[in-house]
Amino acid sequence: MQTKIAIVGYGNLGKGVECAVKQNDDLSLYGVFTRRNPSSLKTLTGAAVYHIDDILNHKENIDVLVICGGSATDLPTQTPTLARNFNVVDSFDTHAKIPEHFANVDAAAKEGGKIAMISVGWDPGMFSLNRMYAEAILPNGKDYTFWGKGVSQGHSDAIRRIDGVVDARQYTIPVDEALSAVRSGTNPELSTRQKHTRECFVVAADGADKARIENEIKTMPNYFADYDTTVHFITKEELDRDHAGIPHGGFVIRSGKTGLNLEHNNIIEYSLKLDSNPEFTSSVLVAYARAAARMNREGASGCKTVLDVAPAYLSPCDGADLRKRLL
Amino acid sequence: MQTKIAIVGYGNLGKGVECAVKQNDDLSLYGVFTRRNPSSLKTLTGAAVYHIDDILNHKENIDVLVICGGSATDLPTQTPTLARNFNVVDSFDTHAKIPEHFANVDAAAKEGGKIAMISVGWDPGMFSLNRMYAEAILPNGKDYTFWGKGVSQGHSDAIRRIDGVVDARQYTIPVDEALSAVRSGTNPELSTRQKHTRECFVVAADGADKARIENEIKTMPNYFADYDTTVHFITKEELDRDHAGIPHGGFVIRSGKTGLNLEHNNIIEYSLKLDSNPEFTSSVLVAYARAAARMNREGASGCKTVLDVAPAYLSPCDGADLRKRLL
Repeated sequence: MQTKIAIVGYGNLGKGVECAVKQNDDLSLYGVFTRRNPSSLKTLTGAAVYHIDDILNHKENIDVLVICGGSATDLPTQTPTLARNFNVVDSFDTHAKIPEHFANVDAAAKEGGKIAMISVGWDPGMFSLNRMYAEAILPNGKDYTFWGKGVSQGHSDAIRRIDGVVDARQYTIPVDEALSAVRSGTNPELSTRQKHTRECFVVAADGADKARIENEIKTMPNYFADYDTTVHFITKEELDRDHAGIPHGGFVIRSGKTGLNLEHNNIIEYSLKLDSNPEFTSSVLVAYARAAARMNREGASGCKTVLDVAPAYLSPCDGADLRKRLL
Repeated sequence: MQTKIAIVGYGNLGKGVECAVKQNDDLSLYGVFTRRNPSSLKTLTGAAVYHIDDILNHKENIDVLVICGGSATDLPTQTPTLARNFNVVDSFDTHAKIPEHFANVDAAAKEGGKIAMISVGWDPGMFSLNRMYAEAILPNGKDYTFWGKGVSQGHSDAIRRIDGVVDARQYTIPVDEALSAVRSGTNPELSTRQKHTRECFVVAADGADKARIENEIKTMPNYFADYDTTVHFITKEELDRDHAGIPHGGFVIRSGKTGLNLEHNNIIEYSLKLDSNPEFTSSVLVAYARAAARMNREGASGCKTVLDVAPAYLSPCDGADLRKRLL
């Protein structure tokens, strides 16, 4: 029996889900739901496109919706609304608002008898999982999360809003010395500046004052002022040629003590090096979509996160096969 | 409410469990059960010692038993026997016999209405989990497990059985070039010899033929013949001074493709660097003991592995706290 997935929202993440479903024989793609005019949208694999307003008419044909909207304005309303009628998965990533989002979605999903998985991806998501496993195993320790090297969409956008900037790409880069200090087991206290640097590739308009632009970037509060930031001015052609990808990644490291007198140190490290941030996130969403469908078939409902899902639910393989091959 | 843990078997692993319980305020140690004369055994923390034959008399006082016997002869009989009356956790690590052990333990635990977690530790255990998560997320890929640098007890024992050897310590070491090749995303085919080397520190008896010993080690089938092996002869004093620890660790790396035409590569890497292999294994056992008690309180029974346990069950913290701090 195949699990039928539908996509809500067709940006980079939605396209990633479309590609990820193709890699899994037990999943099939029912179609894409969009706020745009469906006839204006051509999907990568030829998947059917429907208007979001018609989605309830398709309720019986869909096992799980993967909601690919943004965390700022889309997901806070879309996920609870859709969870009344569908099993859903989202990638809500505004860390501070997760408790509120969880409460709203949980009420809706329970009302509908559906499973809603929120905050699925890699951070929140796989990184959260690894912080949790590591803390449970080594309670006497400290964990560190580093991001990058990778493109930060939010920081790239912030640079683009500066007067005289045509386009920009910003990379977040973990500081090697900080990583080494953490791996040494000394549990250092690290400032924001000590953990990450920021590197910016900027296309300036003809005749723009580059010194002013560079200064505006480096002193921008929250985004850059607390970091060592490097700015490179390049041409639009160079930007398109050398910085078109959306790589990302990072590290979750926990260093913790064991032994009668805490005399032994142990390091747990999880890292990702992703050529495509949205495609990897989509791949995680699709694995949790499979889990959502299964858990709901078994009678479960309500809001769940990656912390609530037994690993075996993510795999198309049965328990005996997993134990034999992977345990 | 505290979860009461008891230890069966008091070797390195049992001592590790004793130390790990001390680090967790929600757990308490009821005592140690041994086949030896209880009065002959002095525990690290002063925990009570009982004879294993009396264990049923303590049934009502214990929430979970952590069985710290060996996989070769102890666990295949101890775990199913004890699972009829107790929630249990073991670290059964004979990979090829896991399906058989699972079936035996599952029948016993279901009969008793108890939870039995088998094959808990880091491999099998955390490494298995990471192989499974990574395969579910990146189905189009290949995973690699490397062990070390660390002491292999089995290989050290094999050297000690050679005529003229007084003592020995063997380190398994992953080959840097192999790790780099895997991390590059080329999904190389690696032979046994290409993945690990073996380094041996050997104390020879006075007048023993070192050339013969070295040759016997390097040509020993299964253990050494398929590896590049280095042998160092040292004194007993040097062995005790420089090689008394039981460090270990390793790497699970999966490299997998995403994108419409699988054009992007993504690397997931999990690694451990442990000063104390048995203490870390014990720390994992204790976290899963907590989970076993909870799952049984909720009415679950039968044999489980790390693949069947939702991560949040491992933590003493509640869901709202975990979502706020770690998601």
